[in-house]
Amino acid sequence: MTLREIVARNLRRLRQAKGLSQEELAHRAGLDRNYIGYLERSKNSPTVDTLERIAAELDCDPAAFFSRPE
Amino acid sequence: MTLREIVARNLRRLRQAKGLSQEELAHRAGLDRNYIGYLERSKNSPTVDTLERIAAELDCDPAAFFSRPE
Repeated sequence: MTLREIVARNLRRLRQAKGLSQEELAHRAGLDRNYIGYLERSKNSPTVDTLERIAAELDCDPAAFFSRPE
Repeated sequence: MTLREIVARNLRRLRQAKGLSQEELAHRAGLDRNYIGYLERSKNSPTVDTLERIAAELDCDPAAFFSRPE
């Protein structure tokens, strides 16, 4: 599994735990409405700056995006 | 401190612990020779794909780039 895929999986998990749709999260983080969907399908490699904005809206530590599945 | 600055600081620390110059690390990771220097000065926001390549050369967990200074 690539790091991009690990981030994609954690993003989806953390977003759903927060009860937000992809579009809602994108709107809150100031991102294109389709962008969260792209990330969750591993279609794009997000930057550190983007991960910081998403983590702020999910109230999570950015390091949580990198935890490997057990 | 922004997340970009945290990553910059950890990158420098981990690179130096490995005994590599910025140029050596860039070469091994297939990056422009000046790029590691840019990252360590927080001039650029690296992508997840780039962090994966750098972490592989530093033999570290990519999550280590995100640990906050104590």
